[in-house]
Amino acid sequence: MKQILIIGAGRSASSLIRYLLEHAETEGWTIIVGDVSVELALEKTAGQKHAKAIQLDVNNDIQREGLIKQADVIISMLPAFMHFTIAKDCLKYRKHLITASYISKEIRDLHDEAKQKGVLFLNEAGLDPGIDHMSAMQIIDRMKQQGGRLISFKSYCGGLISPESNDNPWNYKFTWNPRNVILAGQGIAQYIDNGRYKYIPYNRLFSDIELISVEGYGQLEAYANRDSLAYRKVYGLQQIPTLLRGTLRNPGFCEAWNVFVRLGLTDDTYTIDDSEKLTYADWINSYLPKGTKGNTEQRLSAFLGEQETSALMQKIKWTGILENETIKIPKATPAGILQELLERKWKLKEDDIDMIVMVHKFVYEMAGLKKEIHSALIVKGENAMHTAMAKTVGLPMGIAVKLLLQNRIKERGVVVPTEKEIYEPVLKELGTYGINFIETERSLSSKE
Amino acid sequence: MKQILIIGAGRSASSLIRYLLEHAETEGWTIIVGDVSVELALEKTAGQKHAKAIQLDVNNDIQREGLIKQADVIISMLPAFMHFTIAKDCLKYRKHLITASYISKEIRDLHDEAKQKGVLFLNEAGLDPGIDHMSAMQIIDRMKQQGGRLISFKSYCGGLISPESNDNPWNYKFTWNPRNVILAGQGIAQYIDNGRYKYIPYNRLFSDIELISVEGYGQLEAYANRDSLAYRKVYGLQQIPTLLRGTLRNPGFCEAWNVFVRLGLTDDTYTIDDSEKLTYADWINSYLPKGTKGNTEQRLSAFLGEQETSALMQKIKWTGILENETIKIPKATPAGILQELLERKWKLKEDDIDMIVMVHKFVYEMAGLKKEIHSALIVKGENAMHTAMAKTVGLPMGIAVKLLLQNRIKERGVVVPTEKEIYEPVLKELGTYGINFIETERSLSSKE
Repeated sequence: MKQILIIGAGRSASSLIRYLLEHAETEGWTIIVGDVSVELALEKTAGQKHAKAIQLDVNNDIQREGLIKQADVIISMLPAFMHFTIAKDCLKYRKHLITASYISKEIRDLHDEAKQKGVLFLNEAGLDPGIDHMSAMQIIDRMKQQGGRLISFKSYCGGLISPESNDNPWNYKFTWNPRNVILAGQGIAQYIDNGRYKYIPYNRLFSDIELISVEGYGQLEAYANRDSLAYRKVYGLQQIPTLLRGTLRNPGFCEAWNVFVRLGLTDDTYTIDDSEKLTYADWINSYLPKGTKGNTEQRLSAFLGEQETSALMQKIKWTGILENETIKIPKATPAGILQELLERKWKLKEDDIDMIVMVHKFVYEMAGLKKEIHSALIVKGENAMHTAMAKTVGLPMGIAVKLLLQNRIKERGVVVPTEKEIYEPVLKELGTYGINFIETERSLSSKE
Repeated sequence: MKQILIIGAGRSASSLIRYLLEHAETEGWTIIVGDVSVELALEKTAGQKHAKAIQLDVNNDIQREGLIKQADVIISMLPAFMHFTIAKDCLKYRKHLITASYISKEIRDLHDEAKQKGVLFLNEAGLDPGIDHMSAMQIIDRMKQQGGRLISFKSYCGGLISPESNDNPWNYKFTWNPRNVILAGQGIAQYIDNGRYKYIPYNRLFSDIELISVEGYGQLEAYANRDSLAYRKVYGLQQIPTLLRGTLRNPGFCEAWNVFVRLGLTDDTYTIDDSEKLTYADWINSYLPKGTKGNTEQRLSAFLGEQETSALMQKIKWTGILENETIKIPKATPAGILQELLERKWKLKEDDIDMIVMVHKFVYEMAGLKKEIHSALIVKGENAMHTAMAKTVGLPMGIAVKLLLQNRIKERGVVVPTEKEIYEPVLKELGTYGINFIETERSLSSKE
C-alpha cells in the first residue's frame, strides 16, 4: 500500500486528484488530500474509499511532518514560495516531491542532498512549465539523434476561453492565477534572435507582438515571455541562434491590454489615496493627461487616438472601468483594483469550456536541407472545475507520480522533466486523455 | 572654541567648507574635514589654520565615535543611506546633525529621542530639498498671515548648464549625482490637481510635460516629480486643491530622454549578457523592434518616426550611443551603460558655469480677489568646483550651522527647515551671496 499526500486542493488540483483516484484501486494507493479548507479537500474526495480529506495547516510543523513522514510521495500544489518548507521535510524523511512550479534558487540548492538521499524532486511538471519541456525535448532529442542541427526554436502557450464559451469582446477569461495575468511582463523580456540578444521593455511588450497561425484553430497573437534565455541551458541548446518563448492571446487582446499598461493601471507598487471612495471613472480620470476634454470615455478615446466606437474602446468599456461605480477597496494598488474588477468580468461560468493552446516552431538543418516543424496542442476543458488548464497541469503530475511509484523513474535529485524516461511515458499516456500534439513538417528553401 | 565635523569632502561639500572656513576665525570654530580620501579633505582645507583634514573610515566605529564625541555639530555629506549610523552616534553623544538629504523613515523615528536629549537633526537643508522648503514657507506663512487662502502651489527646480558653457545639443551637463538623473522618475509620479489625484506612469513622464516661463531666463520644460502629495503635510497645506513639484530641463531634453525610456535603456534591474564585448550600436540594436531596416541609426529613426537629421536624432547621435565603440563594462545594467557613457559626455569642464533655476508659482485668494505670485531663483556657478549646485546646497547648511552655534535656533528633534526662525535668517544671508528670489505678483480675473 503506497501513500500519496497532496497538499492544496484548489481548482488547479481537481484533475490531478481525479486521475489519482481513478488509479488508486489498481495501483494500491491511499490518497491523502490536505488543505487549509477541509471543505475543498472533502469536495474533491467525496465517496472515495481510497481517499482521505484532512484539514492541514502547513505552518503546523508537527502535523505537516507527521503526514509527510507517512507518505511515499508528496505533491505540493501550494504557491511556489511555500514549497521550500515541504522540500526540507521531504529531505528529512527521504520522500519524493512533485510540483508544477518553477525551481527556485533555494530548491535548486537541495539537488546534491536529494540525489545523495535517493529522492526525486520533480518540478515544472505541469503544463507551462511541464508539458512544454516534455514535448519540446521529445522533438529536440529526436532531431539530434537524426543528426539535425536546430537553428531556431520558438514556443508559445496560452490559457484561453474556447470559442463556444466566449461571450466578451476580449475573447478571454481567467483560467489560472489572475494576479499573474495582471502583472505579466513587468520588467524586461529577453530572448535571442539570429545570434543577437533582444530586449523588449514593458512599455513595448504588448505592441511588439507576433501573429501565430495555429493548425486547427486560426490566428493568435503572442507577446514575449520574461526570460527565454534560461531555456538554452534547460534544453541543452547553448549554441542556438534563435530562442523565444511567448504567451498566446486572441487577436486584439494585446492592443487592448496595452491601454492598461499605457495608463499605468498594472502597477502594484503604490496605493491609491481614498481608493474606496472613488468610482472607476474617477480613477481612470486620474491617469488621463491634462488637455483632453469631455467625459472619461471621450478623454480616453482622445488620449488613445481612437473613435469612441472602435473595437479597442468596446473592450475597454466592457470592463466597466469607465463607469460611475464605486471601487470600494481601501488602500488598493492600481493592479489590485484592476484585478478585482476583471475577476468579476472574466470569471468562468460553471459550464464554460476553456482551452489551452501550445505551439512549438522548430527550424533545423539536416543533410544540407532546412526544414521546419510545427507542433501544436489544443486541449479543451470539460467545465469550470475540470478545465483544460487543470487537466494539462494535473495529468502530467499524476502520471509522473504513477511512474515513480512503479519504479519506472530512475533519476534522482532536483530535476525538471527533460529526460526521456519521464517525458516519453508521460506524453504517451497524456495521448490517451486526448492531449496530443499535431506535428507538421515542411521544407524551407536553404536560402531562407 | 566650537568644533564642526564635516563627514564627506566631495565636490558637493566645496562651497560648504569654504563658507565655514571664511567664518572660522570670527566665530571661533575648528573645522574637521573627514573623508575616505584624505587627498580630497586636504585639497579643501589646504593652508587653513582653523581646519584639519582627516582620513576617515565611517565603518571604523572607534574612529568615527571619537570624532563625533569631540565635535559640537556634525554635517554629514555622505549618501543618504549612511546617515543613520552617524545619527545614532549623535544621539549617544548628544550632538547636533545637519544633512541635505531627505529624512528617511529610520531617521524620522529618532525624533522623540532627539528632542528629549535636546539635539537638532536638521535634514533637507540644501537646495532641493532645502532652499525650496525655506523660500516656499516664507511666502506661504506671509500669505496666511495676511489672510490669503492658497489654492495652487507648483514648484520646480533644475540643475542646468549655463548658456555660455553649453556646447552640446541637450543643453545639459551633470552637476549632481548622475545616477539619480539616469533613474529619475521610475515608479509613478503623483500630484493633486484641482482636488483630483493625478498619476503619471514612467512611460508618459517625459512626454506629459509642462512649459514654464522663467523671468530672466526664458522657457524651460518640467516633468513631474515622484511624490508631490507628501508636501501637503510638510508645508501645512493639507487642503490645497493643486500641488505639484517638478524638475526643470531645457526645451527638447525630455523628448530626447524619452527615447532612452522608450527603448528601455534606463532599466537598472537586469544585466546585459556579454556587455563588455558589445558595441553601443549592437546594444541599441538589441532594443529595436523587428521589421525596421538599415543600420542602427536608420532603424532607430524609423522606430521613432523621425528624420535622421531631426533635432531629436542629433541629440541621440551626439551621445555616441549609435557608434561602433565597445562598451567594455562587464555585467552592466542598461542604466549602468547609459550612465558611464553620459558621464563622459556630460562632464563639466574645469571652467564651466552651471546654473540652478527654482520657480514657485502660487495662486491664492484674498478679500475676494485671485492673485498669482511667481518667485524665481537663478544662480550661476563660478567653475566646476564651486558650482551653483555646490553653493546652493552648501551655503544654507553652513548658515544653519552658524545660526545653531550662535544659539539662534531653538527647535530640537528631527526637522526640516520650514520654521521661520531657520528660514528667515538663512534666506537673508543667502541674499548676500547673490542667492535671491525675484518675486512678481499679478491679479487674475476671479473667473479664471
